[in-house]
Amino acid sequence: MSLIVQKYGGTSVGSTERIRRVAERVIATQRAGHRVAAVVSAMSGVTDTLLGMARELSPRPTERELDVLLATGEQTTIALLAMAINAAGARAVSFTGAQAGIVTDGTHTRARIANIDPAEMQARLDDGEIVIVAGFQGRTMAGQVTTLGRGGSDLTAIALAAALKADQCQIFTDVDGVYTCDPRIVPDARKLDELAYEEMLELASSGAKVMQSRSVEFANKFGVPFEVRSSFNDNPGTHVIAEHMSMENVVVRGLSVEKNQAKVTITAVPDRPGTAASVFNALSSAAVVVDVIVQNVAHVTGATDISFTLNKDDLDAARAALEPVAREIGAKGVEAKSGVAKLSVVGIGMRSHSGVAAKLFASLAAAGVNIQMISTSEIKVAVIIEEADITRAARAVHADFGLANGPLLA
Amino acid sequence: MSLIVQKYGGTSVGSTERIRRVAERVIATQRAGHRVAAVVSAMSGVTDTLLGMARELSPRPTERELDVLLATGEQTTIALLAMAINAAGARAVSFTGAQAGIVTDGTHTRARIANIDPAEMQARLDDGEIVIVAGFQGRTMAGQVTTLGRGGSDLTAIALAAALKADQCQIFTDVDGVYTCDPRIVPDARKLDELAYEEMLELASSGAKVMQSRSVEFANKFGVPFEVRSSFNDNPGTHVIAEHMSMENVVVRGLSVEKNQAKVTITAVPDRPGTAASVFNALSSAAVVVDVIVQNVAHVTGATDISFTLNKDDLDAARAALEPVAREIGAKGVEAKSGVAKLSVVGIGMRSHSGVAAKLFASLAAAGVNIQMISTSEIKVAVIIEEADITRAARAVHADFGLANGPLLA
Repeated sequence: MSLIVQKYGGTSVGSTERIRRVAERVIATQRAGHRVAAVVSAMSGVTDTLLGMARELSPRPTERELDVLLATGEQTTIALLAMAINAAGARAVSFTGAQAGIVTDGTHTRARIANIDPAEMQARLDDGEIVIVAGFQGRTMAGQVTTLGRGGSDLTAIALAAALKADQCQIFTDVDGVYTCDPRIVPDARKLDELAYEEMLELASSGAKVMQSRSVEFANKFGVPFEVRSSFNDNPGTHVIAEHMSMENVVVRGLSVEKNQAKVTITAVPDRPGTAASVFNALSSAAVVVDVIVQNVAHVTGATDISFTLNKDDLDAARAALEPVAREIGAKGVEAKSGVAKLSVVGIGMRSHSGVAAKLFASLAAAGVNIQMISTSEIKVAVIIEEADITRAARAVHADFGLANGPLLA
Repeated sequence: MSLIVQKYGGTSVGSTERIRRVAERVIATQRAGHRVAAVVSAMSGVTDTLLGMARELSPRPTERELDVLLATGEQTTIALLAMAINAAGARAVSFTGAQAGIVTDGTHTRARIANIDPAEMQARLDDGEIVIVAGFQGRTMAGQVTTLGRGGSDLTAIALAAALKADQCQIFTDVDGVYTCDPRIVPDARKLDELAYEEMLELASSGAKVMQSRSVEFANKFGVPFEVRSSFNDNPGTHVIAEHMSMENVVVRGLSVEKNQAKVTITAVPDRPGTAASVFNALSSAAVVVDVIVQNVAHVTGATDISFTLNKDDLDAARAALEPVAREIGAKGVEAKSGVAKLSVVGIGMRSHSGVAAKLFASLAAAGVNIQMISTSEIKVAVIIEEADITRAARAVHADFGLANGPLLA
C-alpha cells in the first residue's frame, strides 16, 4: 500500500471549516487505498498574532522563547485536524515536531534538520492510522523546541517523505501549481505539468514564491519528487522531479518576475584583490541580502564598476554600509537606484542549446525595453529592467518563447 | 539563598500588559535575594477559545488531542513571560510540562502526576536564571502530552515546590486570600492570616473556590505550605500550613456557602443491606456528583429515608437514574427539590470543643432559618437550608461566632 505525505499550508487550514475540508481530503486519500501522513502549518494569522504579542513584550524577543511561542501554532492545528478526522470516522493521531522525532541543530528560529526518526509514525501508519505532523518545528538532542524558519512546513513535508520513504509528496497550497509566469502579470500563463528541481530552484530564487528555495534544495538533495497543487480544488498540480533526458528538449520552461528591486553601482573601484570582499562583507554585516552581482573587466584606467541588486527596502541600509567602504577602497562613489525589476528565463534545455539569450534580448528590444544589467547561470538568463516596463516585457517574452502553447522544444 | 515557587493564574497573565506586571513581580522577588520558579496558566479566555474550536470540529473531541490542543495555552504564556523578563534585564528560561520533567499517568484530560525530575530546572536556578514552567500539563513516560484537569496549574506549583524543596510556594490569584466567609455575602468577612490544610479542604469542598481540593490534598500529603495572595496588589495573603498546637484554640475558622444546590430524598427505603449501594451506583453511572449524604435510623416500620444533595444542574439526570432503582429496591418514592443552599462552619478546634453545633443551630433559630438537613465531619458542621435564607443565615452565624473581630478562641 503506497504512502503519501501531504502538506497543508496556513491558508488551507485557516478556519475550522477549512480544517474540516482538509480532514475530508485526507480521509478520501486513505479510502482510495493509501497510507497518509499530513504535515500542517499554523492557521493563517496565528503566527502574526503570536509575533505581535512577543513584540509588545520585547523589542528583540529571545530566539529560544520565540520558538517555544511559535511552535504552539502548528501544535494547535495538528490537534484540531486529528479531532476532525476522528469525528468523521477515521483514525488519526497527532505528532508535534519533537514527537515526530524531528531532531535539529540548536539554531533557534532557523534550525536545520539533522535527523528524523520515523519509527513511531511508521508504527501508527502500519496500524491504519492517519498521522498528522506539525510542520516548521523540531527539537534539539537536548529537548529544546526549535523552528525551521520561513518555508519550514514545506521542509518538514519533504524531509518526512524522505524519512518515511513515501511514494508521493503533495504540497497543497492556495495556487494550482507552478506556472510559466505569474498569471497576474501574463494572463495566458500556462500551468506546468512537470519541471526539474533545478528549474524550480531558479524560479523560486527569481521571485516565483510558491516555495522557498531551501525546501526544493532539500528535495533535490534527497531525491524526493513532490507535487504542488491547490487545496481548494481537485485539479492536478505541477510535479517537481529529477531532471530526465527529455527535459533537455525544453529550452525554456518558464519566466519569473521580481519587482521591488533596487540596483547599486560602486563606480571606479581600483582593480586589486580584496575590494569585492570588502564591499560584500560590509553588506553582509548590515544583514543586506544581495541578489544578482555583476562586475565587468577593468577599464584601461585600472578601475572597474561593481553592480548588484537587492530588495528596495534594504537600499538605505546598503547605502549606509557602503559609503565608508567605498572611500576606504578608493572607489569613486556609490550610485543607487530603486524602481527596477528582474525578469528571468529558466529552462534546463538552455544548457545544450545556444541562442536563448540572443532571443531574449531581441524580444526585449522589439518591445522597446532597455536592459540595465545581465546575469546568467547554466539554466537561466536574468535581466534587470525598469520596473515600469516589467509587464510589457514579460508578456512579450512569454509570447515570443511560445510558452502559452506548450513547452518550446528545441 | 531561599527558593520561591510562584503561581500566576489565567487572570493574572490575561494580557501582555499583565504579563509585563508579572515579570516585574518575579524580577523583584529575585532582586530581593531569592531564587524564583514561576508556574503560569493559559491567558484567560484562551482555553475557552481552543475548546470552542474543538467543539466546532467534533461533538466529542479525542481526549488525547484535547491535551495536545490545550497544552498550547500555557506554552504560549511561558514563552511570553520569559521574553518579558529577558527584556527587563533579568534572565529567564521557559519549560513546558514535558521539559520540566513532569511525568504523569496516561489519563488524558485529568492525568495524575507520577514524578517530577527537577534536575534541569535546578541547574538553571543554580545558574541565576528565573525558571518559568507551564502549569496544568505534563507528559507520559512514552512522551504523550497530558493535562491535569481543573485546578491543574495550582497542582503543578505545589508539586514543583515539593520537587524543588522550595522554601515558599505563593499562589497568586485575583483575590487577596482566604476569608472567614465570601465578602460578597458577608461584607465584614475578614481575611485569614493562616489556616490548616484540613480547614482549607473543608472550605474548598464547601464552595469557597479559591483552589481545587485536589491541590490542597496534594500539599497536605507532601507537607508543602503555601500562601494564597493577590497578583494585583502587595497585600500579604493567607498561609495554608500544617496544623499546629495553637490552632486547636480556634474553634471556628470560617464559614462557606454553596448555592445552587438541590436535595433528593428516597422515601421509605426497606432497611436491608445493599439498598444504599444500589442508589449511589446508579447515580455514579449517570455521572452525578453527590455532596452531603444523610440516612437516619430505620423507623419501626423497617424502612428509612435516604437524602443527599447535589448541584441543581444535575437534578434531572439524578431523578432519571433513581426512579427505576427506587422501584427495584421497593422504596416508596423519590422526592426532589432545588432552591436549597449549604452553609458550613469549619474549624480544627471543633475536634476538642463541644457546643459548636448547638451554637450554630441556636444562631440559625434566632435568625428564623429552618434547617432541612444536617451533616457533620470532625472539623465541620454543615446545614442545608432554603437558598432564599442563605445571606441572612451567613451574616447571623458570622456575627454570632464573632468572626469579623478575629479568631474565636475557646
